[in-house]
Amino acid sequence: MPTIETVFSPALIQHHALENRSVVIIDVLRATSSICYALFEGARSLMPVSTPEDCLRYRTLGCLCAAERNGLKLDGFDMGNSPLEFSRDLVQGRDIAITTTNGTYALLESRSANRIFIGSFLNLDLLAHYLMMENQDITLVCAGWKNKVNLEDSLFAGALASKLNDFEIRCDSTLMAIELWENSKDRLYEVVDRSSHARRFKRLGVDDLPVCLDLNRCPVVPEYLGDRIVAV
Amino acid sequence: MPTIETVFSPALIQHHALENRSVVIIDVLRATSSICYALFEGARSLMPVSTPEDCLRYRTLGCLCAAERNGLKLDGFDMGNSPLEFSRDLVQGRDIAITTTNGTYALLESRSANRIFIGSFLNLDLLAHYLMMENQDITLVCAGWKNKVNLEDSLFAGALASKLNDFEIRCDSTLMAIELWENSKDRLYEVVDRSSHARRFKRLGVDDLPVCLDLNRCPVVPEYLGDRIVAV
Repeated sequence: MPTIETVFSPALIQHHALENRSVVIIDVLRATSSICYALFEGARSLMPVSTPEDCLRYRTLGCLCAAERNGLKLDGFDMGNSPLEFSRDLVQGRDIAITTTNGTYALLESRSANRIFIGSFLNLDLLAHYLMMENQDITLVCAGWKNKVNLEDSLFAGALASKLNDFEIRCDSTLMAIELWENSKDRLYEVVDRSSHARRFKRLGVDDLPVCLDLNRCPVVPEYLGDRIVAV
Repeated sequence: MPTIETVFSPALIQHHALENRSVVIIDVLRATSSICYALFEGARSLMPVSTPEDCLRYRTLGCLCAAERNGLKLDGFDMGNSPLEFSRDLVQGRDIAITTTNGTYALLESRSANRIFIGSFLNLDLLAHYLMMENQDITLVCAGWKNKVNLEDSLFAGALASKLNDFEIRCDSTLMAIELWENSKDRLYEVVDRSSHARRFKRLGVDDLPVCLDLNRCPVVPEYLGDRIVAV
Protein backbone atom coordinates (compact mmCIF):
# COMPACT_ATOMS: atom_id res chain seq x y z
CA MET A 1 0.00 0.00 0.00
CA PRO A 2 1.50 3.37 -0.96
CA THR A 3 2.07 5.91 1.79
CA ILE A 4 1.12 9.54 2.13
CA GLU A 5 3.00 12.20 4.07
CA THR A 6 2.42 15.90 4.59
CA VAL A 7 5.02 18.63 5.06
CA PHE A 8 3.57 21.82 6.55
CA SER A 9 6.43 24.14 5.58
CA PRO A 10 9.25 24.14 3.00
CA ALA A 11 11.64 24.48 5.97
CA LEU A 12 10.69 20.92 6.97
CA ILE A 13 11.33 19.33 3.56
CA GLN A 14 14.86 18.40 4.58
CA HIS A 15 13.43 16.16 7.32
CA HIS A 16 11.29 14.20 4.85
CA ALA A 17 12.95 12.03 2.21
CA LEU A 18 11.35 12.82 -1.16
CA GLU A 19 13.35 10.37 -3.28
CA ASN A 20 11.18 7.90 -5.19
CA ARG A 21 8.04 9.73 -4.12
CA SER A 22 5.56 11.90 -5.97
CA VAL A 23 5.23 15.37 -4.50
CA VAL A 24 2.24 17.69 -4.68
CA ILE A 25 3.14 21.36 -4.25
CA ILE A 26 0.40 23.36 -2.53
CA ASP A 27 0.21 27.15 -2.50
CA VAL A 28 -3.51 27.83 -2.45
CA LEU A 29 -3.07 31.60 -2.07
CA ARG A 30 -2.10 31.79 -4.85
CA ALA A 31 0.75 30.31 -6.91
CA THR A 32 -0.64 26.84 -7.46
CA SER A 33 -4.15 28.21 -8.00
CA SER A 34 -2.76 30.56 -10.65
CA ILE A 35 -0.86 27.72 -12.33
CA CYS A 36 -3.96 25.55 -12.53
CA TYR A 37 -5.97 28.50 -13.80
CA ALA A 38 -3.40 29.43 -16.44
CA LEU A 39 -3.09 25.89 -17.80
CA PHE A 40 -6.86 25.48 -17.86
CA GLU A 41 -7.13 28.74 -19.78
CA GLY A 42 -4.77 27.36 -22.38
CA ALA A 43 -1.25 28.42 -21.36
CA ARG A 44 1.29 26.02 -22.87
CA SER A 45 3.66 25.96 -19.87
CA LEU A 46 4.82 27.80 -16.76
CA MET A 47 8.45 28.07 -15.77
CA PRO A 48 9.04 28.63 -12.05
CA VAL A 49 12.09 30.77 -11.38
CA SER A 50 13.66 32.05 -8.18
CA THR A 51 14.01 35.76 -8.76
CA PRO A 52 12.28 38.56 -10.70
CA GLU A 53 15.57 39.18 -12.52
CA ASP A 54 15.66 35.58 -13.76
CA CYS A 55 12.02 35.88 -14.72
CA LEU A 56 12.50 38.87 -17.01
CA ARG A 57 15.25 37.08 -18.95
CA TYR A 58 12.60 34.75 -20.34
CA ARG A 59 10.91 37.65 -22.12
CA THR A 60 13.54 37.43 -24.84
CA LEU A 61 12.35 33.86 -25.44
CA GLY A 62 8.82 35.12 -26.03
CA CYS A 63 7.52 34.24 -22.58
CA LEU A 64 5.02 36.17 -20.55
CA CYS A 65 6.53 37.16 -17.21
CA ALA A 66 4.66 36.88 -13.89
CA ALA A 67 6.16 38.12 -10.64
CA GLU A 68 4.75 38.58 -7.16
CA ARG A 69 6.41 39.51 -3.89
CA ASN A 70 4.62 39.96 -0.58
CA GLY A 71 1.24 39.67 -2.21
CA LEU A 72 1.70 42.31 -4.93
CA LYS A 73 2.49 42.23 -8.66
CA LEU A 74 5.88 43.73 -9.39
CA ASP A 75 6.18 46.66 -11.77
CA GLY A 76 7.21 45.85 -15.32
CA PHE A 77 5.72 42.34 -15.40
CA ASP A 78 2.80 41.05 -17.44
CA MET A 79 1.02 39.73 -14.40
CA GLY A 80 1.43 39.06 -10.69
CA ASN A 81 -0.01 36.06 -8.88
CA SER A 82 -3.77 36.50 -9.11
CA PRO A 83 -5.45 33.63 -11.00
CA LEU A 84 -7.81 35.99 -12.79
CA GLU A 85 -4.86 37.78 -14.39
CA PHE A 86 -4.11 34.58 -16.34
CA SER A 87 -7.09 34.97 -18.68
CA ARG A 88 -7.48 32.95 -21.85
CA ASP A 89 -7.02 35.90 -24.22
CA LEU A 90 -3.70 36.66 -22.58
CA VAL A 91 -2.23 33.21 -21.92
CA GLN A 92 -3.55 30.86 -24.60
CA GLY A 93 -0.66 29.07 -26.29
CA ARG A 94 1.91 31.05 -24.31
CA ASP A 95 4.81 30.04 -22.06
CA ILE A 96 4.94 31.95 -18.78
CA ALA A 97 7.92 32.49 -16.51
CA ILE A 98 6.72 32.91 -12.92
CA THR A 99 8.26 33.82 -9.57
CA THR A 100 6.29 34.08 -6.32
CA THR A 101 7.05 34.51 -2.62
CA ASN A 102 6.41 30.95 -1.51
CA GLY A 103 5.09 28.61 -4.18
CA THR A 104 8.03 28.64 -6.55
CA TYR A 105 10.38 28.26 -3.55
CA ALA A 106 8.59 25.12 -2.36
CA LEU A 107 8.67 23.77 -5.90
CA LEU A 108 12.37 24.34 -6.38
CA GLU A 109 13.12 22.83 -2.93
CA SER A 110 11.30 19.63 -3.89
CA ARG A 111 13.32 18.73 -6.96
CA SER A 112 14.68 15.52 -5.43
CA ALA A 113 11.23 13.96 -5.78
CA ASN A 114 10.47 11.44 -8.50
CA ARG A 115 7.52 13.43 -9.89
CA ILE A 116 6.15 16.83 -8.92
CA PHE A 117 2.50 17.81 -9.32
CA ILE A 118 0.67 21.05 -8.63
CA GLY A 119 -2.36 21.06 -6.35
CA SER A 120 -5.04 23.62 -5.55
CA PHE A 121 -8.73 23.59 -4.76
CA LEU A 122 -9.24 24.35 -8.46
CA ASN A 123 -8.06 20.88 -9.52
CA LEU A 124 -8.72 18.85 -6.35
CA ASP A 125 -10.83 15.97 -7.63
CA LEU A 126 -9.01 15.38 -10.90
CA LEU A 127 -5.63 15.43 -9.17
CA ALA A 128 -6.85 12.99 -6.51
CA HIS A 129 -8.15 10.71 -9.25
CA TYR A 130 -4.85 10.86 -11.13
CA LEU A 131 -2.78 10.15 -8.00
CA MET A 132 -4.91 7.15 -7.14
CA MET A 133 -4.38 5.77 -10.63
CA GLU A 134 -0.62 6.33 -10.33
CA ASN A 135 -0.56 4.53 -6.94
CA GLN A 136 2.86 5.88 -5.90
CA ASP A 137 4.07 7.10 -2.47
CA ILE A 138 3.01 10.73 -2.11
CA THR A 139 4.29 13.71 -0.13
CA LEU A 140 2.13 16.83 0.09
CA VAL A 141 4.31 19.92 0.41
CA CYS A 142 2.65 23.06 1.74
CA ALA A 143 4.32 26.27 0.60
CA GLY A 144 3.27 28.20 3.71
CA TRP A 145 4.27 31.85 4.14
CA LYS A 146 7.99 32.53 4.39
CA ASN A 147 8.58 29.13 5.96
CA LYS A 148 5.76 29.51 8.48
CA VAL A 149 2.85 27.09 8.46
CA ASN A 150 -0.38 28.39 6.98
CA LEU A 151 -3.98 27.37 7.25
CA GLU A 152 -5.18 27.23 3.66
CA ASP A 153 -2.38 24.98 2.38
CA SER A 154 -2.81 22.64 5.36
CA LEU A 155 -6.55 22.49 4.68
CA PHE A 156 -5.97 21.60 1.06
CA ALA A 157 -3.50 18.88 2.09
CA GLY A 158 -6.28 17.47 4.26
CA ALA A 159 -8.80 17.71 1.43
CA LEU A 160 -6.53 15.83 -0.96
CA ALA A 161 -5.42 13.25 1.62
CA SER A 162 -9.03 12.55 2.57
CA LYS A 163 -9.74 11.61 -1.05
CA LEU A 164 -6.75 9.29 -1.44
CA ASN A 165 -8.29 6.02 -0.39
CA ASP A 166 -6.02 3.03 0.03
CA PHE A 167 -2.99 5.10 0.99
CA GLU A 168 -1.32 4.41 4.33
CA ILE A 169 -1.11 7.45 6.59
CA ARG A 170 2.01 7.21 8.73
CA CYS A 171 2.61 10.82 9.64
CA ASP A 172 0.83 13.00 12.14
CA SER A 173 0.78 16.02 9.83
CA THR A 174 -1.50 14.13 7.47
CA LEU A 175 -3.78 13.13 10.37
CA MET A 176 -3.91 16.76 11.49
CA ALA A 177 -4.64 18.03 7.98
CA ILE A 178 -7.48 15.55 7.44
CA GLU A 179 -8.97 16.40 10.84
CA LEU A 180 -8.84 20.11 9.96
CA TRP A 181 -10.42 19.55 6.56
CA GLU A 182 -13.22 17.35 7.85
CA ASN A 183 -14.13 19.98 10.42
CA SER A 184 -13.87 22.91 8.02
CA LYS A 185 -15.10 21.73 4.63
CA ASP A 186 -18.67 22.85 5.16
CA ARG A 187 -17.56 26.39 6.01
CA LEU A 188 -14.37 26.64 3.97
CA TYR A 189 -14.61 30.31 3.05
CA GLU A 190 -15.34 31.32 6.64
CA VAL A 191 -12.39 29.32 7.99
CA VAL A 192 -9.87 30.53 5.40
CA ASP A 193 -11.12 34.09 5.82
CA ARG A 194 -9.64 33.99 9.37
CA SER A 195 -6.19 33.01 8.10
CA SER A 196 -3.22 35.35 8.21
CA HIS A 197 -3.13 35.34 4.42
CA ALA A 198 -6.74 36.45 4.11
CA ARG A 199 -6.01 39.29 6.52
CA ARG A 200 -2.99 40.23 4.41
CA PHE A 201 -5.21 40.26 1.31
CA LYS A 202 -7.62 42.64 3.03
CA ARG A 203 -4.79 45.02 3.84
CA LEU A 204 -3.62 44.88 0.21
CA GLY A 205 -7.12 45.11 -1.28
CA VAL A 206 -6.77 41.68 -2.94
CA ASP A 207 -10.02 39.73 -3.43
CA ASP A 208 -8.83 36.33 -4.63
CA LEU A 209 -10.36 34.06 -1.99
CA PRO A 210 -13.49 33.24 -4.02
CA VAL A 211 -11.61 32.08 -7.11
CA CYS A 212 -8.96 30.19 -5.10
CA LEU A 213 -11.62 28.30 -3.12
CA ASP A 214 -13.74 27.47 -6.18
CA LEU A 215 -13.51 23.69 -6.02
CA ASN A 216 -12.77 21.89 -9.29
CA ARG A 217 -13.14 24.98 -11.45
CA CYS A 218 -10.01 24.06 -13.44
CA PRO A 219 -9.72 20.30 -13.93
CA VAL A 220 -6.09 19.95 -14.99
CA VAL A 221 -3.16 17.87 -13.70
CA PRO A 222 -0.09 20.11 -13.86
CA GLU A 223 3.27 18.37 -13.64
CA TYR A 224 6.72 19.89 -13.33
CA LEU A 225 8.76 18.29 -16.13
CA GLY A 226 12.31 19.45 -16.78
CA ASP A 227 12.19 23.19 -16.22
CA ARG A 228 8.48 23.77 -16.82
CA ILE A 229 5.02 22.91 -15.62
CA VAL A 230 2.64 21.46 -18.20
CA ALA A 231 -0.78 19.81 -18.10
CA VAL A 232 -0.39 16.03 -18.40
CA MET B 1 -3.05 42.93 23.90
CA PRO B 2 -0.32 40.29 24.12
CA THR B 3 0.07 37.92 21.19
CA ILE B 4 0.28 34.15 20.99
CA GLU B 5 2.15 32.14 18.37
CA THR B 6 2.66 28.43 17.86
CA VAL B 7 5.68 26.65 16.38
CA PHE B 8 4.91 23.09 15.27
CA SER B 9 8.52 21.89 15.09
CA PRO B 10 11.88 22.95 16.55
CA ALA B 11 13.10 23.20 12.93
CA LEU B 12 10.78 26.20 12.53
CA ILE B 13 11.98 28.12 15.60
CA GLN B 14 14.47 30.08 13.49
CA HIS B 15 11.55 31.57 11.55
CA HIS B 16 9.86 32.89 14.71
CA ALA B 17 11.54 35.63 16.76
CA LEU B 18 11.50 34.55 20.42
CA GLU B 19 13.20 37.63 21.87
CA ASN B 20 11.12 39.37 24.55
CA ARG B 21 8.57 36.56 24.51
CA SER B 22 7.71 33.82 26.96
CA VAL B 23 8.05 30.36 25.49
CA VAL B 24 6.21 27.21 26.52
CA ILE B 25 8.03 24.00 25.61
CA ILE B 26 5.66 21.14 24.80
CA ASP B 27 6.70 17.50 24.61
CA VAL B 28 3.63 15.64 25.76
CA LEU B 29 5.10 12.19 25.05
CA ARG B 30 6.97 12.49 27.30
CA ALA B 31 9.69 14.90 28.39
CA THR B 32 7.53 17.78 29.58
CA SER B 33 5.06 15.38 31.18
CA SER B 34 7.94 13.76 33.07
CA ILE B 35 9.29 17.15 34.16
CA CYS B 36 5.90 18.22 35.53
CA TYR B 37 5.50 14.85 37.22
CA ALA B 38 8.97 14.94 38.79
CA LEU B 39 8.55 18.47 40.17
CA PHE B 40 5.10 17.64 41.52
CA GLU B 41 6.57 14.59 43.23
CA GLY B 42 9.11 16.81 44.96
CA ALA B 43 12.19 16.89 42.76
CA ARG B 44 14.18 20.06 43.43
CA SER B 45 15.24 20.70 39.83
CA LEU B 46 15.81 19.16 36.41
CA MET B 47 18.78 20.01 34.25
CA PRO B 48 18.23 19.47 30.51
CA VAL B 49 21.41 18.39 28.75
CA SER B 50 22.11 17.49 25.12
CA THR B 51 23.83 14.13 25.35
CA PRO B 52 23.85 11.04 27.57
CA GLU B 53 27.57 11.61 28.17
CA ASP B 54 26.91 15.12 29.49
CA CYS B 55 24.10 13.73 31.58
CA LEU B 56 26.26 11.17 33.41
CA ARG B 57 28.78 13.85 34.43
CA TYR B 58 26.15 15.28 36.75
CA ARG B 59 26.20 12.10 38.82
CA THR B 60 29.39 13.31 40.50
CA LEU B 61 27.36 16.32 41.67
CA GLY B 62 24.86 14.05 43.36
CA CYS B 63 22.25 14.26 40.61
CA LEU B 64 19.98 11.51 39.43
CA CYS B 65 20.50 10.87 35.72
CA ALA B 66 17.63 10.34 33.25
CA ALA B 67 18.27 9.46 29.62
CA GLU B 68 16.01 8.36 26.79
CA ARG B 69 16.65 7.85 23.09
CA ASN B 70 14.09 6.67 20.55
CA GLY B 71 11.57 5.95 23.29
CA LEU B 72 13.75 3.75 25.50
CA LYS B 73 15.67 4.28 28.76
CA LEU B 74 19.41 4.02 28.21
CA ASP B 75 21.43 1.49 30.18
CA GLY B 76 23.28 2.79 33.22
CA PHE B 77 20.85 5.62 33.98
CA ASP B 78 18.53 6.01 36.97
CA MET B 79 15.49 6.51 34.78
CA GLY B 80 14.41 7.08 31.20
CA ASN B 81 11.55 9.32 30.15
CA SER B 82 8.43 7.71 31.62
CA PRO B 83 6.66 10.01 34.11
CA LEU B 84 5.94 7.13 36.47
CA GLU B 85 9.67 6.47 36.87
CA PHE B 86 9.97 9.84 38.63
CA SER B 87 8.24 8.64 41.81
CA ARG B 88 8.31 10.60 45.04
CA ASP B 89 10.46 8.09 46.95
CA LEU B 90 13.11 8.36 44.24
CA VAL B 91 13.08 12.05 43.32
CA GLN B 92 12.06 14.01 46.43
CA GLY B 93 14.60 16.74 47.14
CA ARG B 94 16.85 15.59 44.31
CA ASP B 95 18.33 17.32 41.27
CA ILE B 96 17.94 15.39 38.03
CA ALA B 97 20.00 15.70 34.86
CA ILE B 98 17.84 14.71 31.88
CA THR B 99 18.38 14.15 28.16
CA THR B 100 15.63 13.09 25.75
CA THR B 101 15.18 12.72 22.00
CA ASN B 102 13.10 15.83 21.36
CA GLY B 103 12.08 17.75 24.46
CA THR B 104 15.50 18.82 25.67
CA TYR B 105 16.44 19.76 22.10
CA ALA B 106 13.44 22.09 21.77
CA LEU B 107 14.28 23.60 25.16
CA LEU B 108 17.89 24.29 24.31
CA GLU B 109 16.90 25.74 20.90
CA SER B 110 14.58 28.25 22.62
CA ARG B 111 17.12 29.92 24.87
CA SER B 112 16.77 33.30 23.16
CA ALA B 113 13.32 33.70 24.76
CA ASN B 114 12.75 35.98 27.71
CA ARG B 115 11.27 33.24 29.89
CA ILE B 116 10.81 29.52 29.24
CA PHE B 117 8.04 27.44 30.79
CA ILE B 118 7.23 23.75 30.56
CA GLY B 119 3.78 22.62 29.47
CA SER B 120 1.96 19.30 29.44
CA PHE B 121 -1.58 18.10 29.96
CA LEU B 122 -0.53 17.41 33.57
CA ASN B 123 -0.25 21.14 34.34
CA LEU B 124 -2.56 22.67 31.72
CA ASP B 125 -4.92 24.78 33.80
CA LEU B 126 -2.40 26.13 36.29
CA LEU B 127 0.03 27.05 33.52
CA ALA B 128 -2.74 28.82 31.58
CA HIS B 129 -3.70 30.71 34.73
CA TYR B 130 -0.08 31.73 35.37
CA LEU B 131 0.45 32.89 31.77
CA MET B 132 -2.69 35.00 31.87
CA MET B 133 -1.49 36.68 35.04
CA GLU B 134 1.91 37.35 33.45
CA ASN B 135 0.25 38.87 30.34
CA GLN B 136 3.36 38.64 28.14
CA ASP B 137 3.65 37.67 24.46
CA ILE B 138 3.78 33.89 24.25
CA THR B 139 5.20 31.38 21.79
CA LEU B 140 4.20 27.73 22.13
CA VAL B 141 7.04 25.48 20.91
CA CYS B 142 6.13 21.90 20.04
CA ALA B 143 9.02 19.46 20.37
CA GLY B 144 7.68 17.12 17.69
CA TRP B 145 9.60 13.99 16.73
CA LYS B 146 13.02 14.52 15.19
CA ASN B 147 11.90 17.85 13.72
CA LYS B 148 8.69 16.42 12.28
CA VAL B 149 5.33 17.77 13.43
CA ASN B 150 3.40 15.59 15.83
CA LEU B 151 -0.22 15.37 16.83
CA GLU B 152 -0.11 15.34 20.62
CA ASP B 153 2.08 18.43 21.01
CA SER B 154 -0.06 20.32 18.48
CA LEU B 155 -3.18 19.30 20.40
CA PHE B 156 -1.74 20.54 23.66
CA ALA B 157 -0.78 23.84 22.02
CA GLY B 158 -4.43 24.16 21.01
CA ALA B 159 -5.62 23.30 24.50
CA LEU B 160 -3.40 25.92 26.09
CA ALA B 161 -4.13 28.57 23.44
CA SER B 162 -7.87 28.02 23.81
CA LYS B 163 -7.57 28.88 27.50
CA LEU B 164 -5.54 32.07 26.99
CA ASN B 165 -8.32 34.60 26.72
CA ASP B 166 -7.41 38.14 25.74
CA PHE B 167 -4.39 37.09 23.69
CA GLU B 168 -4.29 38.09 20.03
CA ILE B 169 -3.87 35.15 17.66
CA ARG B 170 -1.91 36.28 14.61
CA CYS B 171 -0.53 33.00 13.32
CA ASP B 172 -2.25 30.22 11.45
CA SER B 173 -0.52 27.49 13.46
CA THR B 174 -2.37 28.67 16.56
CA LEU B 175 -5.69 28.71 14.67
CA MET B 176 -5.01 25.17 13.44
CA ALA B 177 -4.06 23.94 16.92
CA ILE B 178 -7.19 25.40 18.53
CA GLU B 179 -9.37 23.93 15.80
CA LEU B 180 -7.78 20.51 16.36
CA TRP B 181 -8.21 20.73 20.12
CA GLU B 182 -11.84 21.83 19.98
CA ASN B 183 -12.66 18.90 17.72
CA SER B 184 -10.68 16.34 19.72
CA LYS B 185 -11.00 17.26 23.38
CA ASP B 186 -13.98 15.02 24.04
CA ARG B 187 -12.14 11.98 22.65
CA LEU B 188 -8.56 12.89 23.47
CA TYR B 189 -7.26 9.40 24.22
CA GLU B 190 -8.78 7.99 21.04
CA VAL B 191 -7.28 10.77 18.88
CA VAL B 192 -3.79 10.59 20.40
CA ASP B 193 -3.88 6.80 20.20
CA ARG B 194 -3.82 7.17 16.38
CA SER B 195 -0.63 9.28 16.46
CA SER B 196 2.70 8.03 15.21
CA HIS B 197 4.08 8.27 18.75
CA ALA B 198 1.34 6.08 20.20
CA ARG B 199 2.08 3.50 17.51
CA ARG B 200 5.77 3.70 18.43
CA PHE B 201 4.85 3.13 22.09
CA LYS B 202 2.91 0.01 21.15
CA ARG B 203 5.90 -1.39 19.30
CA LEU B 204 8.11 -0.67 22.33
CA GLY B 205 5.61 -1.91 24.90
CA VAL B 206 5.37 1.52 26.54
CA ASP B 207 2.04 2.34 28.21
CA ASP B 208 2.38 6.01 29.12
CA LEU B 209 -0.58 7.51 27.29
CA PRO B 210 -2.94 7.39 30.29
CA VAL B 211 -0.60 9.28 32.63
CA CYS B 212 0.46 11.80 29.97
CA LEU B 213 -3.17 12.62 29.10
CA ASP B 214 -4.28 12.87 32.76
CA LEU B 215 -5.37 16.52 32.74
CA ASN B 216 -4.19 18.66 35.65
CA ARG B 217 -2.79 15.75 37.64
CA CYS B 218 0.37 17.72 38.51
CA PRO B 219 -0.43 21.41 39.08
CA VAL B 220 3.03 22.97 38.90
CA VAL B 221 4.53 25.79 36.82
CA PRO B 222 8.02 24.68 35.79
CA GLU B 223 10.35 27.39 34.55
CA TYR B 224 13.81 27.05 33.01
CA LEU B 225 16.04 29.38 35.05
CA GLY B 226 19.77 29.46 34.40
CA ASP B 227 20.69 25.86 33.70
CA ARG B 228 17.78 24.17 35.45
CA ILE B 229 14.03 23.77 35.55
CA VAL B 230 12.33 24.52 38.87
CA ALA B 231 8.75 24.99 40.03
CA VAL B 232 7.96 28.70 40.37
